[in-house]
Amino acid sequence: MLGSTFGSIFRVTTWGESHGKAMGVVIDGCPPFLDITEEEIQAEVDRRKPRENSAAATPRRESDQVQILSGVFEGKTTGTPISLMVTNENTRSGDYGNIQNLYRPGHADYTYDLKYGRRDFRGGGRSSGRETVSRVMAGAIAKKLLKTSHKTEIYGHTIQVGHLKLDNFDKDFIEQSELRSADPQVESELLKLVETTKNAGDSLGAIIQIVIKNPPKGIGMPTFSKLEADLARAMLSIGAVKGFEIGGGFAAASSLGSENNDEMYSQNGETHFKTNNSGGILGGISTGEDIIIRLAIKPVSSIAKPQETIDTNNQNATIETHGRHDVCLAPRIIPVAEAMAALTLADHLLLQQTTHLQD
Amino acid sequence: MLGSTFGSIFRVTTWGESHGKAMGVVIDGCPPFLDITEEEIQAEVDRRKPRENSAAATPRRESDQVQILSGVFEGKTTGTPISLMVTNENTRSGDYGNIQNLYRPGHADYTYDLKYGRRDFRGGGRSSGRETVSRVMAGAIAKKLLKTSHKTEIYGHTIQVGHLKLDNFDKDFIEQSELRSADPQVESELLKLVETTKNAGDSLGAIIQIVIKNPPKGIGMPTFSKLEADLARAMLSIGAVKGFEIGGGFAAASSLGSENNDEMYSQNGETHFKTNNSGGILGGISTGEDIIIRLAIKPVSSIAKPQETIDTNNQNATIETHGRHDVCLAPRIIPVAEAMAALTLADHLLLQQTTHLQD
Amino acid sequence: MLGSTFGSIFRVTTWGESHGKAMGVVIDGCPPFLDITEEEIQAEVDRRKPRENSAAATPRRESDQVQILSGVFEGKTTGTPISLMVTNENTRSGDYGNIQNLYRPGHADYTYDLKYGRRDFRGGGRSSGRETVSRVMAGAIAKKLLKTSHKTEIYGHTIQVGHLKLDNFDKDFIEQSELRSADPQVESELLKLVETTKNAGDSLGAIIQIVIKNPPKGIGMPTFSKLEADLARAMLSIGAVKGFEIGGGFAAASSLGSENNDEMYSQNGETHFKTNNSGGILGGISTGEDIIIRLAIKPVSSIAKPQETIDTNNQNATIETHGRHDVCLAPRIIPVAEAMAALTLADHLLLQQTTHLQD
Amino acid sequence: MLGSTFGSIFRVTTWGESHGKAMGVVIDGCPPFLDITEEEIQAEVDRRKPRENSAAATPRRESDQVQILSGVFEGKTTGTPISLMVTNENTRSGDYGNIQNLYRPGHADYTYDLKYGRRDFRGGGRSSGRETVSRVMAGAIAKKLLKTSHKTEIYGHTIQVGHLKLDNFDKDFIEQSELRSADPQVESELLKLVETTKNAGDSLGAIIQIVIKNPPKGIGMPTFSKLEADLARAMLSIGAVKGFEIGGGFAAASSLGSENNDEMYSQNGETHFKTNNSGGILGGISTGEDIIIRLAIKPVSSIAKPQETIDTNNQNATIETHGRHDVCLAPRIIPVAEAMAALTLADHLLLQQTTHLQD
Repeated sequence: MLGSTFGSIFRVTTWGESHGKAMGVVIDGCPPFLDITEEEIQAEVDRRKPRENSAAATPRRESDQVQILSGVFEGKTTGTPISLMVTNENTRSGDYGNIQNLYRPGHADYTYDLKYGRRDFRGGGRSSGRETVSRVMAGAIAKKLLKTSHKTEIYGHTIQVGHLKLDNFDKDFIEQSELRSADPQVESELLKLVETTKNAGDSLGAIIQIVIKNPPKGIGMPTFSKLEADLARAMLSIGAVKGFEIGGGFAAASSLGSENNDEMYSQNGETHFKTNNSGGILGGISTGEDIIIRLAIKPVSSIAKPQETIDTNNQNATIETHGRHDVCLAPRIIPVAEAMAALTLADHLLLQQTTHLQD
Repeated sequence: MLGSTFGSIFRVTTWGESHGKAMGVVIDGCPPFLDITEEEIQAEVDRRKPRENSAAATPRRESDQVQILSGVFEGKTTGTPISLMVTNENTRSGDYGNIQNLYRPGHADYTYDLKYGRRDFRGGGRSSGRETVSRVMAGAIAKKLLKTSHKTEIYGHTIQVGHLKLDNFDKDFIEQSELRSADPQVESELLKLVETTKNAGDSLGAIIQIVIKNPPKGIGMPTFSKLEADLARAMLSIGAVKGFEIGGGFAAASSLGSENNDEMYSQNGETHFKTNNSGGILGGISTGEDIIIRLAIKPVSSIAKPQETIDTNNQNATIETHGRHDVCLAPRIIPVAEAMAALTLADHLLLQQTTHLQD
Repeated sequence: MLGSTFGSIFRVTTWGESHGKAMGVVIDGCPPFLDITEEEIQAEVDRRKPRENSAAATPRRESDQVQILSGVFEGKTTGTPISLMVTNENTRSGDYGNIQNLYRPGHADYTYDLKYGRRDFRGGGRSSGRETVSRVMAGAIAKKLLKTSHKTEIYGHTIQVGHLKLDNFDKDFIEQSELRSADPQVESELLKLVETTKNAGDSLGAIIQIVIKNPPKGIGMPTFSKLEADLARAMLSIGAVKGFEIGGGFAAASSLGSENNDEMYSQNGETHFKTNNSGGILGGISTGEDIIIRLAIKPVSSIAKPQETIDTNNQNATIETHGRHDVCLAPRIIPVAEAMAALTLADHLLLQQTTHLQD
Repeated sequence: MLGSTFGSIFRVTTWGESHGKAMGVVIDGCPPFLDITEEEIQAEVDRRKPRENSAAATPRRESDQVQILSGVFEGKTTGTPISLMVTNENTRSGDYGNIQNLYRPGHADYTYDLKYGRRDFRGGGRSSGRETVSRVMAGAIAKKLLKTSHKTEIYGHTIQVGHLKLDNFDKDFIEQSELRSADPQVESELLKLVETTKNAGDSLGAIIQIVIKNPPKGIGMPTFSKLEADLARAMLSIGAVKGFEIGGGFAAASSLGSENNDEMYSQNGETHFKTNNSGGILGGISTGEDIIIRLAIKPVSSIAKPQETIDTNNQNATIETHGRHDVCLAPRIIPVAEAMAALTLADHLLLQQTTHLQD
């Protein structure tokens, strides 16, 4: 649960720096007999890659070829640690003079030095968004586990970029959209916004929504390990995330109890909720309704505009970041957020199995 | 880190049900030599109590007399587990017929039965807000630790109730305000809103802000244990919290990188930030700037208005909750959120001490 | 898993000092629906008490009245934290001048000061054997869980005191024997040895054996959390234990592979082992055979004979400990070791339930 | 602390199966600025390899070339996860028909199937001794940490093989001896014993001793995380270990308190102990004296003699294991036990830094 390890039972440990030799993850505690292939993991990893020819995305390209190094035998998990790795190829070594001595505003350069006294400054090192490829690899296995056992489906879409709201919903459009928007009607307006911002040397924030259909029912815990608490931690552990809402979220603040409570009723022997302002979780435990989360994504910190900063000798300086950067992180954070949601639910699903003594 | 335990080094375990014999907490991992008295803990516990004669607060009264049962010797901590307890007095036993068989909308009744198959239905049992008295006791010690070592101060105030925004800021007014608002100018309007809502048998949501002044610098972790991630988990583990923001939060979504980045400069040998949109944390590690958090609080679920629901036999029913309930939780959640912030920071402060080998 | 907390799923946290107000334990993660009464827990706590009029045991007497403070409702566990407590009565406060300034050989006085810089010196404070009453309370619940689900029975007996071996085995005699020996034939010789040693102002070591009948089959883990590893940790966490063996133990060192391997065979469709040199565990996982453990117990450190030591100012001194002390700890450690075995198995039993996805 | 992860702060996660693609380990929580090279890790890994032309050791040969994949930058650790890997080369794939269907006595084949329902049967898969190469890699870093900060030295030697005791002590001889014995006088007798046993198709048990010179003083914890408890767990987590002693160990059982207590005295302002029966730990916390541990090693389970067993269909069968096996594991377990000791101490050293608030 600490540092680079996530989860209590389905435990994931990531490693690797942006411009080191490789990125990897070890998953311990995954049940045996789960069918999994490198191709299935690859598909999720590919979704995380920057889109070809997209104005929103960095031109850095990595093949990110997934290797299963342990824990899978004859196509099925064995119950022992699963080790997954991709190598780093496009690392442009030796080309970091600027970053080495300057603290980039909005980045972790300054705080890493505060904490550790040193850092691997090559491409952000461990604080790089590249670390999330390890999460996506692990998340692919968690997704498969949830899908196999509960037909759980997890997907995300961008609902706001800058001031532009993406209100229409066409699920099939999401993976076509450059920004993973579900709103085909404003896609061209959206692309123009991205292009304009890029040309101005600037970047854009966004709001994304994560939807979990058919979550396992009755998982989660009271007190500190509430399902929404662990989801919030999972999401805020993603670099650029600055806010988290579940269900009604901040809008609940201005609602009345009579509006916000989700009334229940029984129909044909099944329990239903009239609304889902709770976002699928009550008292830390899932109701079985869709779990709905929204995340605030800050604009990319690396921008071409000059910014004031200091160097590592505490001298004032100016920095401009030209190079390989995304303009808006939303489309690339979505697969990561889906992965973190899957990891959280997989862990709670297994934890729930300890709640009752089996025969 | 699991279930009713919070923290990796400064580890807190709470226990107790709303109408059981007592509520308590064990703190393991607190350093020795910290001066602490029952009076200091009592002061925080008293802040959490419902305010006398307040329209916003439940009339249930507990003396909540704090007892230190272990871990403190001659007025100082010893480094071994600190056990704290308050007894439950005002429990009205035997008076729960209604709750026993009905699932209250917005409460954890239904999900506890989903998870456990049974629940202590007396006053909400373990899912009651009363559990937070244990957190406040533990938080008092964490606050003392942070204050002693870093002069850290943590306080919260209500910044919105229903649609009413409380924008003026007079810090001294907070503890005078019935709603822990810092805005004396709209206090009377606020009280009228509460009164009206109460008379209508309804309840109010709110937004609160937690401010951490002088946080230890350079604490937190990269990857999954980012300081903001652990703070988010801490906050979402409080019953009625539906949203979490740090720094710019959801507003960051509609800002540009050039607006949102906090530029740095050096003056008289000290490092400064021109703005604090990061909310005091970059890449999971504290910058030393104020840590600013906002929480969305849903309206109290127990309302006097009739609501549709089901009973434990899955039959449709109607419920009205008359009795001892708060109308708006904000003023009572504030001390709990402060406690959770203190527990999170105390834990990360001690964790940070493992980052460098001491002589 | 750290400090005063034991277990990953069935998690136990103890608190209390020898001469503080009370001793207690919180159990988090116990499944709901387990029938448990204060009387059942009391029965185990009573087994741990010093025997009346026994030469081997301290004359300190505590009523040790068990109180269940939370987590049990209408006679059954709820799945939420169970808080158990006994108060300290016979504390003779103010009578510790000697211990306060001297480091007792064989005790933790010196090392507590090394670690913490201070200690609660009243009766050994947290390092006192009295801490184990908390373990026995928690162990009573773990025993009940194992008995209910798997008819598991755990018992211990003393097999050696000083040089005297107790080789005969009459299970019914164990709880009659002052030393929890199963050998009625040498009981009088044993008592004489204890009496003589006591009169000489000295103390005795011992070897005890813990037997686990009908353990759950197939529990444990590979690698670091092997069942025998967690049992070894559990046992070495008891104050006076200096050695641990499982199955063949140290005798295995002088055996051949052909002698030590437990051959298997099938009879009437059931799997059997011809011998049980493994002690019921292979590769960290239980075979279903009896789990057999032996522990080396050092002689009681507090003796009446004068011993050289230093005081807290690092000055040479002499110490004699007259007062309320046991002569041989074996009979009192047995219930504690049984409790630790039960806690370890209960935790692994619940962990095992995470290994396969349930429907 | 669970499964394939060891440690609370200095956290090590191993992965890999005997005949999979590679073996690896991730170390999270290692402080920055530690000088470490692949060569230093390689030196420890080479010590674990089977000795060339030794009768005691398997002829399987692996180059075990250590690769540092992350966490080390410009020759020093960064504080972020360190990933280490060796590839498996000599795997003879496809040659496991016999093991696939038969349960080898003394091995984990049967219990893995009990626990998981399936196993990677190639060369023992995850239960193979080969897993320990990952521990030795991590241990090399822990050793370096302890050596750098406290001049701590950890070494082991074989003190008994079968019935043959190795009582003389010449430290320099250890790494020359085929069995890592420190007794040059009986080396030829020892080798004859090994040869004879091998020719008889049998195997030998042993006792090894681990000595920790200059351990950090005052580390460890009371209650469950006693230093000796965590060392016992560390040691019993090694495949063939069946017994653990610290200090006096089982001999303490037959000693008197007056003999077993380590008296203390002060000389030239320094604290000394007259004896070290405690083995360097009192009440769970290190005294600063040498930490002395002894381990019982069972004879190698794979023997050429025919043994009765069952197959995976629960049918009786006979098994003979010809092939690449060690005769006595002692010399190869020693580097592993040293590594586990180092990992345990490194973790407690870092944990101890959380005990006092630093300025």
